[in-house]
Amino acid sequence: MSGNYGTTFPRLRDAAGTVWRDYTRHAFVEGLRDGSLPRAAYLGYLVQDYIFLIHFARAWALAVTKAETVEEMRACTATVDALVNGEISLHVKTCAEAGLSEADLFGAEEHPANLAYTRYVMDAGHSGDFLDLLVTLAPCVMGYGEIGARLAHGMDADHAYADWIGTYAGAEYQQVCAEAGALLDGALARRLGPRFDELPRWTTLCRRFTEATRLEVGFWQMGLAP
Amino acid sequence: MSGNYGTTFPRLRDAAGTVWRDYTRHAFVEGLRDGSLPRAAYLGYLVQDYIFLIHFARAWALAVTKAETVEEMRACTATVDALVNGEISLHVKTCAEAGLSEADLFGAEEHPANLAYTRYVMDAGHSGDFLDLLVTLAPCVMGYGEIGARLAHGMDADHAYADWIGTYAGAEYQQVCAEAGALLDGALARRLGPRFDELPRWTTLCRRFTEATRLEVGFWQMGLAP
Amino acid sequence: MSGNYGTTFPRLRDAAGTVWRDYTRHAFVEGLRDGSLPRAAYLGYLVQDYIFLIHFARAWALAVTKAETVEEMRACTATVDALVNGEISLHVKTCAEAGLSEADLFGAEEHPANLAYTRYVMDAGHSGDFLDLLVTLAPCVMGYGEIGARLAHGMDADHAYADWIGTYAGAEYQQVCAEAGALLDGALARRLGPRFDELPRWTTLCRRFTEATRLEVGFWQMGLAP
Amino acid sequence: MSGNYGTTFPRLRDAAGTVWRDYTRHAFVEGLRDGSLPRAAYLGYLVQDYIFLIHFARAWALAVTKAETVEEMRACTATVDALVNGEISLHVKTCAEAGLSEADLFGAEEHPANLAYTRYVMDAGHSGDFLDLLVTLAPCVMGYGEIGARLAHGMDADHAYADWIGTYAGAEYQQVCAEAGALLDGALARRLGPRFDELPRWTTLCRRFTEATRLEVGFWQMGLAP
Repeated sequence: MSGNYGTTFPRLRDAAGTVWRDYTRHAFVEGLRDGSLPRAAYLGYLVQDYIFLIHFARAWALAVTKAETVEEMRACTATVDALVNGEISLHVKTCAEAGLSEADLFGAEEHPANLAYTRYVMDAGHSGDFLDLLVTLAPCVMGYGEIGARLAHGMDADHAYADWIGTYAGAEYQQVCAEAGALLDGALARRLGPRFDELPRWTTLCRRFTEATRLEVGFWQMGLAP
Repeated sequence: MSGNYGTTFPRLRDAAGTVWRDYTRHAFVEGLRDGSLPRAAYLGYLVQDYIFLIHFARAWALAVTKAETVEEMRACTATVDALVNGEISLHVKTCAEAGLSEADLFGAEEHPANLAYTRYVMDAGHSGDFLDLLVTLAPCVMGYGEIGARLAHGMDADHAYADWIGTYAGAEYQQVCAEAGALLDGALARRLGPRFDELPRWTTLCRRFTEATRLEVGFWQMGLAP
Repeated sequence: MSGNYGTTFPRLRDAAGTVWRDYTRHAFVEGLRDGSLPRAAYLGYLVQDYIFLIHFARAWALAVTKAETVEEMRACTATVDALVNGEISLHVKTCAEAGLSEADLFGAEEHPANLAYTRYVMDAGHSGDFLDLLVTLAPCVMGYGEIGARLAHGMDADHAYADWIGTYAGAEYQQVCAEAGALLDGALARRLGPRFDELPRWTTLCRRFTEATRLEVGFWQMGLAP
Repeated sequence: MSGNYGTTFPRLRDAAGTVWRDYTRHAFVEGLRDGSLPRAAYLGYLVQDYIFLIHFARAWALAVTKAETVEEMRACTATVDALVNGEISLHVKTCAEAGLSEADLFGAEEHPANLAYTRYVMDAGHSGDFLDLLVTLAPCVMGYGEIGARLAHGMDADHAYADWIGTYAGAEYQQVCAEAGALLDGALARRLGPRFDELPRWTTLCRRFTEATRLEVGFWQMGLAP
């Protein structure tokens, strides 16, 4: 379904069990897939997702401060840059067509489901180390990659949500996922060695990943019923 | 209705407008007041509130790291100590009577409304300074003081929630509120001077206070309908 | 020479090699031992050490925000309290006798050697996790315990630095060291399991401990030649 | 002497008094100017400065997490990117000519004067807000701009340190200074309004700037006598 996101991510995903499916097959996602998602719901989601990406960029910036090698720093810096200068341009462009400026987006009232997820990620970073932060960022990064790839499969050219699907299915975003996967694999090995999965630390990391995934489910839910 | 919580708190409360009333007169609170709140809802709330207080203690500990005088450090340290060794004992005791150990409480699944509030406070502290942190802590500290004082007024001795009301109406907790109010007044004057309310900074602080109050409303809502 | 500071500390100390001896047998320490340390140097050191303890308390408060169990939170909270309300009283009392108020101490210009050590500890905490913070706190906590115990051995009652030596050799401070040792042992096992010393993580932790010890050497050096 | 670095920076610089001159006219700088600085001292400095820039990039990344507008975020992100992908290339290239790889640089032992400065900046950011962080970053950013511009004046083409001087006197780096100055001006006005200099907060910010400048003096001193 998806590209090669490394070896750690699939194990975290498996550890999340059905929560992963609740997230990647959520009714909101299915509405994007078959085009039945009301436009108003989509726009409401985009506004919240813009705010989400702002805090997501903050979290990747926090990762820069917690990296242990210059390569880790550069990888995280590239992601911050991609987020604040790239990915949000889809949101800014689409919302501009609907009459919302970027200042409107930045100043929009943040939904509690948004606060819950983004601030959980920030706090995972502040209370833990680089790994705690990466595993709470992973569900969003790779989840969107998986969803985008699945929805793009056999999609019509005039699909109502072709822009969104194209963004996440595209080669550029899939490359982001591949690099995030490699970053996670390397960071884990560099700190915890090859048998990391025998450590209590691994259980904690899996729990954080699952928690973040659960909060992604809440985010879609907000998109359906703000 | 309440004791003397300083001069800044009433101004923040006024700036929050109806959101403050939504919080302090919430249906959950009224259920505590007239005793109509179902016991199961109360216990569910206590479990979440235990987790809340753990993160609240973390936030006061963060304040210790951000203080600018030794008196500010001591005031915040005393609050951390009061929280992890004092206030949560009501929760631990009541939940123990219902068969829940402290380990059960610490390990309980955290509700998104809980995550949203507590992590918002932590992030306000990490992204801002001592004042940003204090004004997001204030709605909880002083709000419970106001609610406790109001509910204790004319309360029967055999009130179903006498323990809870007594904790927050009691002299000890009211003193905590008075000290938090004095800490806030002093911290504000020490940084922003006597005409702080003419600064853009003040608008930001009011907005943070209102946001935290809004998240308190969500917390009560969770208590009614988890 | 010292009491039981747990099983992890001696391993970290061994990994630090001669740097540990450079610290615990520094000329400043030997001057305290035989009473030859000039009073002015001692007072200058006390002023810097007061500032040091303020930041040390901040670091333990940061540990409260990074703990993973309520017991870890309580242990760290107790240490913050002991520091801001206890250990610094030796400094405040002695400096008061020399005409310096606590406000003088708090506002004293901080020596770069002091900045280097304390801010290194804070940054270890912010960039890493609970363990990174604990291992940079350990050289100070346990080093002073070791030094105090050694210097108290056969000390005359009218020793010039009996107050200082008595503080760190005393049962109360030795108990602090024992508890810090137990906290470290427990925290390490809880996260990295019984074979933590085979992990790259352990090498990083040893390096941090050694770095902090090296900065302790610089702190004594400052005491001799401010 | 220098370009237009905004209106706040000159006021902070004036408040620093002679410390600013101690920094920008340090013997190390004069050695760069007249070419008398021994090559070994220069290389030793470059190694430490590489490590410095790594932590400087971390500090700008921390600023991304503390920004209050998307423009502030973008400005700080651009600086992180410029540091980890740009400015350090001078260091990497020059050190490579002397046989040192980037891994050697990243793993070099950090001098206490380096630790003192960089971790002071990080802690200013963590304990304060965006402004506390910016004013501790400013002495380095703008100081190097001023020094570069002064040293480039009338410099021979075959100057021993033409690379270094050219980097900091160049249009690209001077633009970085201009943008940092504008960022500081805007951030201050946005938070504290037009009469910020009447607030206690301003005194604190000046003190932080002066402290950071003092630590820059120590950094040059280290360059002369490691």
